[in-house]
Amino acid sequence: MEFYIPAKIYHEDGAVLKHGKELASLGRKAFIVTGKSSAVKTGALDDVIKALEDSDTGYILYDKIEENPSVETVMEAADTGRDQGADFVIGIGGGSPMDAAKAIALMVQNRDTSGEILYQDIKIKALPVAEIPTTCGTGSEVTPYSILTRNDKKTKQSIRHKVYPAIACIDAKYLKHAPVSVIRNTAIDALGHLLESYFNKKATDYTRMLCQHGLMAWAKNRTVLSCGTEFTDENYNQLLFASTLAGMAISHTGTSIPHGLSYYMTYNKNIPHGKAVGMFLPGYLALIEKNLVPGYSDVIAGMGFNNLEEFKAFIGHCLGEYCITDEDAGKMVQEMLGNPQKLSSVPFETGEEELQDIIKYAR
Amino acid sequence: MEFYIPAKIYHEDGAVLKHGKELASLGRKAFIVTGKSSAVKTGALDDVIKALEDSDTGYILYDKIEENPSVETVMEAADTGRDQGADFVIGIGGGSPMDAAKAIALMVQNRDTSGEILYQDIKIKALPVAEIPTTCGTGSEVTPYSILTRNDKKTKQSIRHKVYPAIACIDAKYLKHAPVSVIRNTAIDALGHLLESYFNKKATDYTRMLCQHGLMAWAKNRTVLSCGTEFTDENYNQLLFASTLAGMAISHTGTSIPHGLSYYMTYNKNIPHGKAVGMFLPGYLALIEKNLVPGYSDVIAGMGFNNLEEFKAFIGHCLGEYCITDEDAGKMVQEMLGNPQKLSSVPFETGEEELQDIIKYAR
Repeated sequence: MEFYIPAKIYHEDGAVLKHGKELASLGRKAFIVTGKSSAVKTGALDDVIKALEDSDTGYILYDKIEENPSVETVMEAADTGRDQGADFVIGIGGGSPMDAAKAIALMVQNRDTSGEILYQDIKIKALPVAEIPTTCGTGSEVTPYSILTRNDKKTKQSIRHKVYPAIACIDAKYLKHAPVSVIRNTAIDALGHLLESYFNKKATDYTRMLCQHGLMAWAKNRTVLSCGTEFTDENYNQLLFASTLAGMAISHTGTSIPHGLSYYMTYNKNIPHGKAVGMFLPGYLALIEKNLVPGYSDVIAGMGFNNLEEFKAFIGHCLGEYCITDEDAGKMVQEMLGNPQKLSSVPFETGEEELQDIIKYAR
Repeated sequence: MEFYIPAKIYHEDGAVLKHGKELASLGRKAFIVTGKSSAVKTGALDDVIKALEDSDTGYILYDKIEENPSVETVMEAADTGRDQGADFVIGIGGGSPMDAAKAIALMVQNRDTSGEILYQDIKIKALPVAEIPTTCGTGSEVTPYSILTRNDKKTKQSIRHKVYPAIACIDAKYLKHAPVSVIRNTAIDALGHLLESYFNKKATDYTRMLCQHGLMAWAKNRTVLSCGTEFTDENYNQLLFASTLAGMAISHTGTSIPHGLSYYMTYNKNIPHGKAVGMFLPGYLALIEKNLVPGYSDVIAGMGFNNLEEFKAFIGHCLGEYCITDEDAGKMVQEMLGNPQKLSSVPFETGEEELQDIIKYAR
């Protein structure tokens, strides 16, 4: 088994300013990658700019990352970064800017106008990357993954290269401005990581440890996630801890079927990533139970549920309404059957029938 | 809280040869650091040499590291490494060669005939280091620590610099040739790391997670450690997993009083490191209980004991005979009172009286 998480993780109040010197020391000119508003609203962008200015480090701001960022956006950003001489990248936001930051760090370093090398099996290097999460789901602050929208393939897909962040600054105060729906959806994304990593052919003693603790931390926030009542700093910190642990786990195992199925729903139905993942979690666990995969009962109990029906009801309540048509179901099955890597992550034989079962459970 | 474990950890059968290319890619000429015999007996040295030769990477062998290596030995080794143009270091063995490898990696890179800079608060860089454990105690394969014997101060002391290994190759087969006494003593060293890190002022959610899982893995081997009957591959793997987790934990918290007291007994009474640590663990836990430190009952139960007396009996049985004289006790207390860093790691006020209590409990 392997364990490799090279990021220096600082999870604390004021993390960016406390470790601003180290952040700034990654290079001479930072390329700051954000979405359209959350980096500003949360105060994270201000903190980063202050840290850089305090160290006389230059920066360029690129604030046009959309949700589920496309290869085209990454290419445009990389052109800007390259033209202006950026030598490191800081991603601020949810999974979208943080994932984009890694692909941009590759493309600033390696000129390629088409972006094809993002999906080629060749050895290329990236600029150093720092990540600052403003949601509690993706774990992208520690993972080497960058999932981009491929309009050529009409879906989302991870790039071929692993770009490990050098530094992750995690501060609960950046979560305070997020709407409950964002906290909920991203927390369910993290839950997906924990469950899909725990029940995974590549799981090891290391990843199971991370998932068990992540699930415990996550479960402490079940009530507040379900009710949408006021979140405390402790809630935010626990959800961030859970999502970072989940990120560490999937860095080694990858995700599994719920994530694989979610990409279709997000690309075609514009459903937020966490919600799209959550739909398929009860069905995945149903198959885990049916196939007598070790650890099932411990995991259900570890989350504080008595049985799968309770878990399904909880998830259903958190997700709210959605609709999967017959056409969606058929296309998702076909898409997944064309994704042997995701299928091979499942700890039992999985084909068309099993995929249909998971989707049926979600409808 | 922080989390930083940059080493790429490979824990598996045949780890060195499976990842030989990566190991060799750390440089062009390796300086292999070993003790007098275990690297040869275990086959670890043969594996490393084969990995280097398969990649046409040069090497120099330095096999003169003694138990509890001295600054003088490190300096002699570093001179050899520098003269022969080594550009990375591979430590093979227990804590002694692995710790020495880190200090040597510093001193090959930084010429200083006295070795004074090892204990100076300045910024210096080290050559890349890979570590291959042949015992199950130190965790040095992942920690940044290098504890050396300082004959000028008549004790052991960690150098001032942090040298994080780049690669750790962990293979249970290297443990098979070790005498039961070595497995026992090193396993007790790992237990010390787990307990001293768990009950530590610097403990975080990350380090407690590592310690809890480490204690669980460790406790599965209680019977075989106590009886000294035949160890299985599973025993070796669990003890190695526990010691690596323990290393990850102390990388963040450091150790505490039992380690602090042990250095005197090792330097002056020639008692193996793990045994010297083990003596003081029951007394440390007695103070933890007395001061109502949270987690005490869970930890005792997590190790499978009903109470402290059972733990003390178990440790006593594993350690066998030893003697602490009145003179030793007095000198140890004085040495520890002069070590404010170790004292400050204790999660309650600790002075002369508490130190005397811990030592009394060990006699």
